[in-house]
Amino acid sequence: MRLALFNKGRLGIVDGDDLVDVTEQLTGTSTPSAAGALHQHIETVARDGAVQIDLTGCARVPLDEAALEAPLPRPGKVVGAPVNYLDHKAEMEYTTSVADLGVFLKANSSVIGPGQDIVLPYTDKRTDQEGELGVVIGRTASNVDATDALDHVFGYTCVLDITVRSGEDRSTRKSFDTFTPIGPWIVTADEIPDPGSLDLRCDVGGATRQRTNTADLIFGVAELIAYTSSVMTLHPGDVIATGTPAGVGPLSHGDRVVLEIDRVGRLEVGVDGSRATPYEQRPGRRDR
Amino acid sequence: MRLALFNKGRLGIVDGDDLVDVTEQLTGTSTPSAAGALHQHIETVARDGAVQIDLTGCARVPLDEAALEAPLPRPGKVVGAPVNYLDHKAEMEYTTSVADLGVFLKANSSVIGPGQDIVLPYTDKRTDQEGELGVVIGRTASNVDATDALDHVFGYTCVLDITVRSGEDRSTRKSFDTFTPIGPWIVTADEIPDPGSLDLRCDVGGATRQRTNTADLIFGVAELIAYTSSVMTLHPGDVIATGTPAGVGPLSHGDRVVLEIDRVGRLEVGVDGSRATPYEQRPGRRDR
Repeated sequence: MRLALFNKGRLGIVDGDDLVDVTEQLTGTSTPSAAGALHQHIETVARDGAVQIDLTGCARVPLDEAALEAPLPRPGKVVGAPVNYLDHKAEMEYTTSVADLGVFLKANSSVIGPGQDIVLPYTDKRTDQEGELGVVIGRTASNVDATDALDHVFGYTCVLDITVRSGEDRSTRKSFDTFTPIGPWIVTADEIPDPGSLDLRCDVGGATRQRTNTADLIFGVAELIAYTSSVMTLHPGDVIATGTPAGVGPLSHGDRVVLEIDRVGRLEVGVDGSRATPYEQRPGRRDR
Repeated sequence: MRLALFNKGRLGIVDGDDLVDVTEQLTGTSTPSAAGALHQHIETVARDGAVQIDLTGCARVPLDEAALEAPLPRPGKVVGAPVNYLDHKAEMEYTTSVADLGVFLKANSSVIGPGQDIVLPYTDKRTDQEGELGVVIGRTASNVDATDALDHVFGYTCVLDITVRSGEDRSTRKSFDTFTPIGPWIVTADEIPDPGSLDLRCDVGGATRQRTNTADLIFGVAELIAYTSSVMTLHPGDVIATGTPAGVGPLSHGDRVVLEIDRVGRLEVGVDGSRATPYEQRPGRRDR
């Protein structure tokens, strides 16, 4: 099942070429919270188990006429895995990997959806695309074993972990508003029994920059959930960006970024560099 | 005004030696969300302006009989300022400060309240206390100037930024469950017109480890909000831990940690080392 937010917070199921509006049916409310209708559905399933869905009589919108939005506009947490592919470790000349670095956090305020623009903050610092498989937690996970970890997954999505190359903490470099495009929808976990065998491709400006298979992850999805849950309790609706392969590179004004993951979907966003300012004009700078 | 959560999510105003229950009056609901009744009140004030409060006829509980809880059990974001006092920069032999490092993020799942225990994860890695002034955002802040920044503050609280000394990303080292004690309440901003002149003291096991005044912050509260809001939009209920002075040190099983900030309050928590395990037994370790 593919679940999407569209047309200002409506919750839809993709059915052929249509989106079927199941907002009230899956959330029990017509006014979802800021976390969104899909987040509420995930919490409902976590609490009460799977929900029976009946598409009979529901409103339908052709998929190509719907304005898709980030399926989770404000996740509880956005967790990232630094250096989780060996080829990216090599290209960046990193000496450590996720096994040494643990995980980082991105601000949940950085999420945007399909068709929106990544806004470049600085004229003179690189801002790179990083295409990644996203995991959406479905059941609370604390100190889970890797063997049980996939039972805690609600589904999968495409995530771009946009990153400034500068000297700040990862949380700063990766948390500018618009730096976490998510979508186009969430595919429920039953459709992807093995998240460790998915082809992933990321194109920028029509040229393919990143191409991998999730088989090459250093921490696979299950081990990444197990590790993360040994540090912090994962809650329903939390998102884990599983890390990026080689091929990260700078974005420019007007670029289109397309991330496509086998069996998950295709996420496309734009790039807006019109508001970028020189790095040295940022607030709080100091003369060294 | 001092606002506290107590007795399983009730919202109270401190009035002399009592807590006055204003849950329904300030939130319009008797069943607050997971983010808590005080979070809902902060969002209400952000949307509708100040709320008239009438304590007549409200239930009262003696403060010393109430079970105080974290005033914000699950903030939208918990932002931290690395190296924001010169004496802490010197003790850690850091060559950079907040002006170079920007801010980091802590998992909102790491919050605990007064009287709860910090749980030490590892037997053989230091876990340190870091006592800090906490700022609670009251109005959405994006690219605000330092001169306007304090208008976006709802109030202040005490925050302990508990930290493992190891090689992982800050977000990992600072995000273990229980690593962000907050409380005992939030003092509204009108009571603290100048957050840059507050004495702060942190005691562990009866000995004073940290003693400073917020006048010594490298980024003061206003500049820290301005900088952070240039990276990420701050929302009502977000918490900023403003950084710690010199005197961080290891916690041991059975320690009591007391953080006291002038005009804000006194936060006390315990330390539980009984579940700690050797670092090399963590999930996902690799032989180097």
